[in-house]
Parts: sequence; C-alpha cells; structure tokens
Amino acid sequence: MSTDIQQINHVSLKYKTGRPLSILDQTKLPLEQVWVDCSDINIMEEAIKKLKVRGAPMIGLSANFFLSFLSKTTHDLDEVFKASEILKNSRPTAVNLIHYMNEFQKNLMNTKTLSWIEAWAVDKWENDKMASNRMSTLGVTLLKPGARVLTHCNTGGLAAAGGGTALGVISKAHEIFGNIHVYVDETRPLLQGGRLTTWELSQQKIPFTLICDNMAASLMQQEKVDAVFVGADRIASNGDTANKIGTYSLAVNAKYHGLPFYVVAPSTTVDSSLKTGAEIPVEERSPEEVRGFVHPEKTFSWAAENCEAYNPAFDVTPASLITAWITEAGVLKHEEISNGIFSKGEK
Amino acid sequence: MSTDIQQINHVSLKYKTGRPLSILDQTKLPLEQVWVDCSDINIMEEAIKKLKVRGAPMIGLSANFFLSFLSKTTHDLDEVFKASEILKNSRPTAVNLIHYMNEFQKNLMNTKTLSWIEAWAVDKWENDKMASNRMSTLGVTLLKPGARVLTHCNTGGLAAAGGGTALGVISKAHEIFGNIHVYVDETRPLLQGGRLTTWELSQQKIPFTLICDNMAASLMQQEKVDAVFVGADRIASNGDTANKIGTYSLAVNAKYHGLPFYVVAPSTTVDSSLKTGAEIPVEERSPEEVRGFVHPEKTFSWAAENCEAYNPAFDVTPASLITAWITEAGVLKHEEISNGIFSKGEK
Repeated sequence: MSTDIQQINHVSLKYKTGRPLSILDQTKLPLEQVWVDCSDINIMEEAIKKLKVRGAPMIGLSANFFLSFLSKTTHDLDEVFKASEILKNSRPTAVNLIHYMNEFQKNLMNTKTLSWIEAWAVDKWENDKMASNRMSTLGVTLLKPGARVLTHCNTGGLAAAGGGTALGVISKAHEIFGNIHVYVDETRPLLQGGRLTTWELSQQKIPFTLICDNMAASLMQQEKVDAVFVGADRIASNGDTANKIGTYSLAVNAKYHGLPFYVVAPSTTVDSSLKTGAEIPVEERSPEEVRGFVHPEKTFSWAAENCEAYNPAFDVTPASLITAWITEAGVLKHEEISNGIFSKGEK
Repeated sequence: MSTDIQQINHVSLKYKTGRPLSILDQTKLPLEQVWVDCSDINIMEEAIKKLKVRGAPMIGLSANFFLSFLSKTTHDLDEVFKASEILKNSRPTAVNLIHYMNEFQKNLMNTKTLSWIEAWAVDKWENDKMASNRMSTLGVTLLKPGARVLTHCNTGGLAAAGGGTALGVISKAHEIFGNIHVYVDETRPLLQGGRLTTWELSQQKIPFTLICDNMAASLMQQEKVDAVFVGADRIASNGDTANKIGTYSLAVNAKYHGLPFYVVAPSTTVDSSLKTGAEIPVEERSPEEVRGFVHPEKTFSWAAENCEAYNPAFDVTPASLITAWITEAGVLKHEEISNGIFSKGEK
C-alpha cells in the first residue's frame, strides 16, 4: 500500500483516499447501523441537513473529508469551491463548519490547486482529536470520584473526533474513577440523548439513567446531580454559548440549585467575530419534528393535525450562567473571558 | 322518562343511571375517539392506572360515578366498599380521588345503605363544575388582553368538570378578550400537552403553539411569555404543589425571568393533613414510557434496549416559586397560605 493512502476509522466516520466519505447514519441509531457513502455533493448536503452526521465538530470535519474526496475525482476548482459553499450554508448555527469552509475557500483561492486538501482535512481531524483528548484530561479535574453528571444531547465520539467534548470528559472520568453515573436528557425533539448518548454509554459500559428533559430540575432538587456538562455549537466573544435547545433551561436550573455548569468545546467552536450570543443565528427546523417523532421509516404525529409548533434547534445560554468553558486551551473562567481570550481571533 | 334518571354528558365522561360509566379513552386522543364502558371494577381500575381517564379532578369524579353505577347493580355493601378501596389505591399522587374515596367509605359505614351514592356523585360533579367556573372567572383577572400564556400537561374539560382548571382560565380569557395565545408544553413522556391540550384548543379555536418542554425557558428569555398557568395534583398546607413532572422546572424558570406562576386547582386538591410537599407521595411509572413513545397500538422504543430510565410522574414545586393559588375560594396569595387557609381541613 502506498504511503500516500490516508485512512480514518472512527465510530461515526470512515475515510480512505480515493473512496467516498462514509458516515454512520445517526438518524437510524440505535435501531440500525447504516453507513452512507457520500459520493456526491447532494448526498453530503442532505446528510448534514437531515442530521445523518451531526455534532458541531463532526459536521465540519465530515465536510472537510468530503471536499478531500471530491478533490481526488475532479480537476475543476470551481466545482470544489461551489461544493464548499453549499456545505458552508447547510446548517447555520454550528460555527466549526463555517470556520473550516472559510479557511478552505481562502486556501483554494490562494493556491489555485487541489493537492493540499487531503493533508489539510486530515490535519483538522488530528487537531480535533487532540483537542478532545486534551479537554477530557482537563475536564476530569472538575469531577470527583462517584460524581453524578447530567448531560444534554450527544457530545461523544459520534459528534467529534476522539472521545468527544462533554461526553469525552465523562468517559475519561469513568475510566479514571470507575464510578461515574450519568443522567442523560433525552433531548427532544430529535432525541440525540435518548438515541445516541444512551447508545455510546451502553457501548462503553458507563452506568446511566435516561430521563425526559423536564425531569432534570427535579433530580437537581433531590440533590442527585453534582454537575452539568454540555457541548456547544457556537461561543461568542463574551462567552455566551449556543447549544442544543434545552441547554438554557438546564443552565437556569443549575444556577438556581447552586450546581456547576460546564461547556466543553474545541476552540473551533468560538466565533470571535461576534460580541455576544444575541448575534448567533439560531436554526429553526420543521414543526413536524415537534408534532411527533421522526422515525427513519415513518414520522409519527401525535399532536392535533398540522397544528402550529415552534422548533428552534438551539438556544443561547448567557455567560453569566456558565461556570467555566473547557477548551483545549484550558479550563477558562470568567476572568479569562473578560480578558478577551475568546476575542483574539481564535477559531 | 322517570325524573330519577340522572344524566351527565361531558367531553370526557358520560353517565346515565343504570348504565356503565362511559369514559373517553384519553390514551387514544387525538388519533381516535374511543369510549370505554366501565362495567366492572377491573376495567375502571385499569382505566385510571393506564391514564384512559386522567386529570386530578376527573379521576376522582369518574371513580364516584363508577361506584354509583356499581351501587345500582348490587346490594352487597362489601363489594362496593372493596371497589372504593381498589380505586383509592389506583393512583397515589392526585389527592382528589383519595378525598372522595375516604368520604365515600365514611358515608357507607355510617349509612349502611347504597341509596345515597348517585346523588352524592352527582353533587360532587356539580361542585367541581362550579369550582371550575369560579376559578376561570377569578383567573381571568390575572391576565390582560393579548396575553401569551404558557401551560403544561392538560387541565381542560378532559381533566375536570366544566371548562377545567388552568386551561379553564385560558379558555375564559380567550372568550372575553378574544386574543389570547397559548404556548403548550408537549409534556413528556405521555404527551398530555401535545395530544390533549392541542386537541382541546383546536376544538375551541384558541390560537396556540406547541413546543417541546425544553423550549419553554428559551421563549421566556425571548420575552414571548407573560404568565404560566398550571393545574395541581396535590397541594400541601404550606402551598407546596405536586403537579405533572416538568412543572418545577417551569416554576424555576418563571422565577428567573420574573414571570408570574399560577396554580389553578379546586380545593379538593388541597391536602391539609400534609405540612409540606416533602410528604406528598410521587408516583413512579414504567421506564418504558421514557425509553420511547407509548402509542395505543404499539410502544416505540428509541433508546438503547432495556436501558435504565427514571420516570417520576410528578414533581413538587415549593410555595416560594408560586405567585398565587387560584381555587374556588379566591386568588390566594402567600399571606393567606401563611394564615393557614390550606390547613383548615379544606378538601
């Protein structure tokens, strides 16, 4: 085998030089494990829009690898540029994708070649993996043996390279202490907690309890939660953090109950061009997702037919409700944020 | 037709002297409207346990009518007493049922006859209807034209005689002002908001928006909510209130956002024997309900197979987070609660 062949085998993504990017269809988990070959831009765009691939870091990384695949099958710079533009606009809130596509387009215009793309995509992957590992190591210092951690959505290996963001910290803590318990918010409407986080924790044999989102506050009231760890889709300069809808409610409840609330995200999630969270665009999705349950084969609607429903995919938690931000740069507190660590053009 | 024939035709319950109590199967709404004839104690007990009939006032009222039906088909006081004991134990949190069954058993032991039962059941029904109407009239004074009201679970005519409790206030406000907007929490896991409240509001042509429970805080943050109105399953002497799981999280969020949080419940919901909410028993239900969606024909499980799940049906909101309690006795504030209005043997 030529040393020029690159190969990545991750829980949710497989890449090999010259082959279409293969992604695990996360909408079908945990019922089925189906891999999708992203052999053209339409398939890749749909995979992102329909959340077959999801998680802020993973969306961006998969777009990078798709462009790497495309660059091996065409010599048309225009075609590759257009594909990057389509991917850049495929989901509006998570900023990692946008950062990557901006850098990609800048490189493409500077170099007017395609030969650098694969090495670049692999480099971004390796960087995200290192960031995951570093965040896990840092985050563990915030937990004690026996800790009961509440989390929202899915932030494990399905959502990032390496072990993930918030779930990466939890996995590492369990590896070290051996006795972590996780409370998993199901995360309506698309049930990333109920479907994906339960699946990852089962595979890793980490004890957990699944709850409906509206039960988290009651657990806090009963003093069954020691800390809340979540991921992020975009962080503004002042620390305001967009994450999966429901995060803000948890943060308010954590504050009320005197519990620490941690955001775990690689620095690619920071958008230093935004002063506050008010500037973060929040994706609104189909009311159908709220009127019922979007099953891979069939959508079940349990609400009054065609009734009005509101479906923001994210909410924005103000920095004031966040205890610390864990990035690969460290455990960042309010002082560092005030000193502008998120404004310094990091991405 | 004899004047001795009693007949009740309500949206969720039909009673006629000599006929089995008929209840609308609320687990099948809004997909199907199926009426269940409660012709023996096993059917009636199952109807309550499976939530075919639900809502704190309606559970108690339907038990009363079932005993009335039973008293017309048997002369065996023991059989009727035993039935009341089974019904009393069929659900642990809502206290209206327990109050009614205690009173029923006391009457039965005093009178050693069955002839009083139907008139008693009808009287309780009429009282609840009057309480609903009174609460609606009182509650409207807390709203302004154009108010945007957030509610949880189902508290309309399906859950009580008359127009209901919290939803009764909302309906009356819309009738008077003509421009109320309702945000409806879907209320996982059993989706009483998504299935039942949307159905009732659609029938009454009151504009509403369905949301997932975890979106309520974000709406409050966006200043789209003016007040929160909920029902209750049991209120302790100090005002602590048990209601459908998720109520407590809403109350914490309402407090954080400076929004009024109102509990609407007839005085049959007050349990003056309990000093605080810590003494209220909270029903825990099957983890299956949290692992998926309990559809009338088939249960869909979307979580990792047989995974651990926690499923408390209720939570307890401390009085400190409640702005006022609306019963048929008035809009009660903290001062009245402190003066012991809920400790005075009301029920």
